[in-house]
Amino acid sequence: MKYPRSINYYETDKMGIVHHSNYIRFFEEARLALMRQVGLDYRNLEEMGIVIPVTFVRCKYLIPLRFEEEIEIQTRLTRYDGIKMELSYEIYRKESGELCTSGETGHCFLNQDLKPIRMKREFPDLYAKLKDLVKE
Amino acid sequence: MKYPRSINYYETDKMGIVHHSNYIRFFEEARLALMRQVGLDYRNLEEMGIVIPVTFVRCKYLIPLRFEEEIEIQTRLTRYDGIKMELSYEIYRKESGELCTSGETGHCFLNQDLKPIRMKREFPDLYAKLKDLVKE
Amino acid sequence: MKYPRSINYYETDKMGIVHHSNYIRFFEEARLALMRQVGLDYRNLEEMGIVIPVTFVRCKYLIPLRFEEEIEIQTRLTRYDGIKMELSYEIYRKESGELCTSGETGHCFLNQDLKPIRMKREFPDLYAKLKDLVKE
Amino acid sequence: MKYPRSINYYETDKMGIVHHSNYIRFFEEARLALMRQVGLDYRNLEEMGIVIPVTFVRCKYLIPLRFEEEIEIQTRLTRYDGIKMELSYEIYRKESGELCTSGETGHCFLNQDLKPIRMKREFPDLYAKLKDLVKE
Repeated sequence: MKYPRSINYYETDKMGIVHHSNYIRFFEEARLALMRQVGLDYRNLEEMGIVIPVTFVRCKYLIPLRFEEEIEIQTRLTRYDGIKMELSYEIYRKESGELCTSGETGHCFLNQDLKPIRMKREFPDLYAKLKDLVKE
Repeated sequence: MKYPRSINYYETDKMGIVHHSNYIRFFEEARLALMRQVGLDYRNLEEMGIVIPVTFVRCKYLIPLRFEEEIEIQTRLTRYDGIKMELSYEIYRKESGELCTSGETGHCFLNQDLKPIRMKREFPDLYAKLKDLVKE
Repeated sequence: MKYPRSINYYETDKMGIVHHSNYIRFFEEARLALMRQVGLDYRNLEEMGIVIPVTFVRCKYLIPLRFEEEIEIQTRLTRYDGIKMELSYEIYRKESGELCTSGETGHCFLNQDLKPIRMKREFPDLYAKLKDLVKE
Repeated sequence: MKYPRSINYYETDKMGIVHHSNYIRFFEEARLALMRQVGLDYRNLEEMGIVIPVTFVRCKYLIPLRFEEEIEIQTRLTRYDGIKMELSYEIYRKESGELCTSGETGHCFLNQDLKPIRMKREFPDLYAKLKDLVKE
């Protein structure tokens, strides 16, 4: 899935480029858009009592992005075993197609008491949807 | 109360100065520090079921602040009637004493269901503490 | 002009609603979109040596916004005299049309040395475009 | 070096914990404090024409942090060869001493035109200070 976005003024820093912490937020936007697309609306998940915290994040900054640039974020579900989930992200400058940023995030599935959920047993439908997504 | 703080790199924007939205966050820090000082720890208030949302904010930008500058925020409780609360803020450059930013925020007191709380009847101790603070 | 937007997860706070400082950023997005629409691309303005800092901001929080809500921001240029500019903002919930937030910002026009620019004399085209926008 | 800090309300998200992107900002605060301590004030570096962008960031989230928690960030310069620099970070809950977050960042040294600087030749004093820091 390609998630389009442009860079806001408040996302730049005094170096004149996007502050490096903001890419982690762009990844979140792209991740939630991907999940929404396959029917896994994150707000619904939270209402069902499923919390999906981030366990790790990795990001490589190749080309800095600037105010008003148009970007596309390519997101893939790279791993899902019912307990853990991993996604990869690639941010491209829309005009030139250059790869500017790449990254990965890891996640787990917890209930409201922050205990691990066995997705396959407790939410077989969601489990199947995510399994399908990782195959693509 | 004078709340000290320095400016972080990630709080600047491409103009090379603090992004104007961040002053609203500095006000929040200073407000919660003031309340903590008189025994009104905001985390405790939330655990007691009291939520204090912001109803308005006003800010005047006089002199822009830059990375690494040391500031002091002077906060005053200017109005409190048990239903509504108002505070004023003045941000000074520590070295020169210049006034750089001024502002006000308004607040109300709600319970977990976001219904107004009658502080005087339900939390007379907190009511008294805030009444004392407004007199100073 | 109506600027559409949805609420990101990272824009919420522990109260479960959009943190009040983020509305100031939404105003900025809507303001720059309005100016872009009439040919006043802010990046171009900065390249021409024109800086438009914020001199004041005011915001009233009527109904809190939540994660994934779709909003529309109605922005108007309410005052422009070549020296100062003022805009007003109204944020509506897209589905219900309810007014959730309203606000205003004030601005001035400075050159790279942060000295006031006489727009009418130095940039008559831009001056005319803004004058037209305030009439609408 | 141990950099102390407490968690601000605006740094939490609707999960009730610090949003994962903010730890990247905490790392920056701790990194700049470490450099300042050895006389490498980042504002001075920028004024000397040295820019130190982030080339990668990695973060592991072990225990979530909450509003008002007191933390300490232990920062180490783990690698420095005059061209590249790497730092590691560990965030501890002050009270319990528990390790909550760990991470690393990578950096390079560029001039104003974003070309690599040969630190050893162009800034031998700074080079020596960083070399000393990596030994500790």
